[in-house]
Amino acid sequence: MATKPEPTKARARFELITLGNELLLGLTQNGHLSFIGAELARYGVELSRNVTITDSADEIARQFRESWARADVVITTGGLGPTSDDRTREVIAEVLGQELVFDPVIEAAIADRFARINRKMTANNRKQAFRPARGEAIENRFGTAPGLWVEQDGRVLVMLPGPPSELQPMFSDQVMPRLARLGLVREGVGYVQIRTVGVGESSLETEILPVLERYADLEVAYCAHQWAVDVRLSPKDAGATLARANAAAAEIASLLGENFLCLGHDTLAKTVGDLLRAAEKRVAVGESGTGGLLSHSFTGVKGCGRVFAGGVVCYCNDTKIHLLDIPECLMKQHGAVSAECAVAMATAAAEQMIADYGLSVTGYAGGDCSGAKDLPKGSFFIGLHTPHGAWSKRLNYPGMPVAAQSRAVMAALDWLRRDLIRAARPAAAEA
Amino acid sequence: MATKPEPTKARARFELITLGNELLLGLTQNGHLSFIGAELARYGVELSRNVTITDSADEIARQFRESWARADVVITTGGLGPTSDDRTREVIAEVLGQELVFDPVIEAAIADRFARINRKMTANNRKQAFRPARGEAIENRFGTAPGLWVEQDGRVLVMLPGPPSELQPMFSDQVMPRLARLGLVREGVGYVQIRTVGVGESSLETEILPVLERYADLEVAYCAHQWAVDVRLSPKDAGATLARANAAAAEIASLLGENFLCLGHDTLAKTVGDLLRAAEKRVAVGESGTGGLLSHSFTGVKGCGRVFAGGVVCYCNDTKIHLLDIPECLMKQHGAVSAECAVAMATAAAEQMIADYGLSVTGYAGGDCSGAKDLPKGSFFIGLHTPHGAWSKRLNYPGMPVAAQSRAVMAALDWLRRDLIRAARPAAAEA
Repeated sequence: MATKPEPTKARARFELITLGNELLLGLTQNGHLSFIGAELARYGVELSRNVTITDSADEIARQFRESWARADVVITTGGLGPTSDDRTREVIAEVLGQELVFDPVIEAAIADRFARINRKMTANNRKQAFRPARGEAIENRFGTAPGLWVEQDGRVLVMLPGPPSELQPMFSDQVMPRLARLGLVREGVGYVQIRTVGVGESSLETEILPVLERYADLEVAYCAHQWAVDVRLSPKDAGATLARANAAAAEIASLLGENFLCLGHDTLAKTVGDLLRAAEKRVAVGESGTGGLLSHSFTGVKGCGRVFAGGVVCYCNDTKIHLLDIPECLMKQHGAVSAECAVAMATAAAEQMIADYGLSVTGYAGGDCSGAKDLPKGSFFIGLHTPHGAWSKRLNYPGMPVAAQSRAVMAALDWLRRDLIRAARPAAAEA
Repeated sequence: MATKPEPTKARARFELITLGNELLLGLTQNGHLSFIGAELARYGVELSRNVTITDSADEIARQFRESWARADVVITTGGLGPTSDDRTREVIAEVLGQELVFDPVIEAAIADRFARINRKMTANNRKQAFRPARGEAIENRFGTAPGLWVEQDGRVLVMLPGPPSELQPMFSDQVMPRLARLGLVREGVGYVQIRTVGVGESSLETEILPVLERYADLEVAYCAHQWAVDVRLSPKDAGATLARANAAAAEIASLLGENFLCLGHDTLAKTVGDLLRAAEKRVAVGESGTGGLLSHSFTGVKGCGRVFAGGVVCYCNDTKIHLLDIPECLMKQHGAVSAECAVAMATAAAEQMIADYGLSVTGYAGGDCSGAKDLPKGSFFIGLHTPHGAWSKRLNYPGMPVAAQSRAVMAALDWLRRDLIRAARPAAAEA
């Protein structure tokens, strides 16, 4: 495929059919949509549509027929397993007018997989060794059901197994390169994303409007997450280029100041990690009421072992007293959910784990909490210990506990982020 | 609505349209599907279909027309916000042939919301105060965009705002009761779910087949999660009843022994919490390589403060040495990722946090890890400290780090679960 200086939108239409009653019953998250959508977007293709349907043979046949008539590439997930409710292979082969044939190579791969994980291969697994007569198996390195690849009528069908740990490496390592070889996906990202923190969607639009008015050749899309608002800029037509989007993004970034987080998809924890690494500092965490969520946010941040010392997760006051050495009298007087306790936890975490910064959350998201005294549900205190002082902040997040915990964690990370940015400036830091 | 002794499947057809380029680009998980699907399932309705489309006006109009022709209830999510790419309200009103009218009551609610959170109401927010002429606003207690409710042509349209923290309470507290009053959803669950751990999907089907053959009036569906396989039994037709499904489930549970986790949707952490509470014991956690995931799994388990003392999350060896008091020589000799270190961490966690049980994970999921010595990627050791001894186990999870971490956490919890079950038996426990 010839490379172009600026990727434009690929013309191929991709549809994704995700199968499974468990998705419609809400028993499983549809992670396939976000994974496959993100992978395609990275190569300049926007998934046109995702339809989630039941495992019923009629529904599968009807939906596949509809998508196959409209799309250039149809991807299906799920329903390739060994049990009796796995019908995708049979139904779709019939719609395509292809016979299913037994493939001894697939059977050998399945038998080999069972041998490696020391499990017995039961008879129903043999079903997975069938493929459409003019299709090919896609190797499954992490499970038994292979994927299937069919080219017919100038279209491509990709059938993937349901478990994410099998689907994801199969898609990235085998399917994407094949799609690229056929010229159906490109390299290069088709948009520029500006990630912002601390400003609402409507204020953000109002604030950046003067810039955008000078870039009428760009398409603008907003996406509000719980903790961030993203602005995505893409060329409206062939006339505009990604360079224009980059220029607009640079103007917006400088306009937003500290509320600008990054270009792209970095998390707060990743940004904090980068700032800590640049400053050659470490942070330690003490948390209660968020149950490890703050500590866990650093997982997956590359090289976090150098900037994140560790965390103490306190589900009960004993742990605060024993592990973090918080004075019992302080907790008795002010309560475990208090400004005083938040500061003490942040400082204790830094001291106990020999870190420059300490970050703490103590809160009452809901449920039983003896330490919350008379505070309303959704009361949180975050604490920040730095080389230049220690402070606490009160937050109030009524609403669902899970959302409240996540917001408290994000608020704590953002506080540290802003402090690190200010500390990196020539003038002295202020909190 | 008359109550029946056994709920059968409600006949109303529900379709869900989730809007947003960010879903198709994989920037946001489609949590609306799992949330709304689960809520409906609880009331005996299985969502027929979920379609995710872009924010384009044409796509919205086309998909809404299609779903509105087929379904009794259409639910849309997203696109009600203040920015220019929020077009759902306008497009759907036009398809329905209803004018949009300005509603001062809605405007007052939005203004009030902004006042409460101390933010300035910008002009673009006024857009959210429009509703279809014969529709009603649904109050948004946690955000600015109200939901919209329209009854027309014998059908119901529910339009919900995109942010989960706004959508979820609105749906549960306001939409579900209204749907119930119209007889469109029922109370009572329409299926029985058996959750199993430690047995693969195909072996499970083979093992329980003799039972299922005696229950030919039941529909069977399997759902394999990373850590569990669920079997869902539902009455095939009006002749069968949930009582039959319950009887079959009881037989299957007794057949599976320790591999049976629960009826329903409990997590491993919830089950472990229940067993600890029954035994009046507590557990403490020490983890590295899973970054707080094990500790965090107890979040949301009701009353976990009484059974879960807390956790230490070690991202670097210093933390193991200082906070958990692991001998430095032990780590030097065997490595931080070793059987010896796993046992030491489990025992240290129990001792430092004054708990009866200690559970630890140390592993090398991928990336840089100085403690892994010559171990291959995906090597984990879990440790279990109990009142009757302490052990470690080696696990090997090649594949994606995130999946590997989650499997290691589940393996650790399941080990503790099995030990607690055995300890509760009259005979002495064995590991």
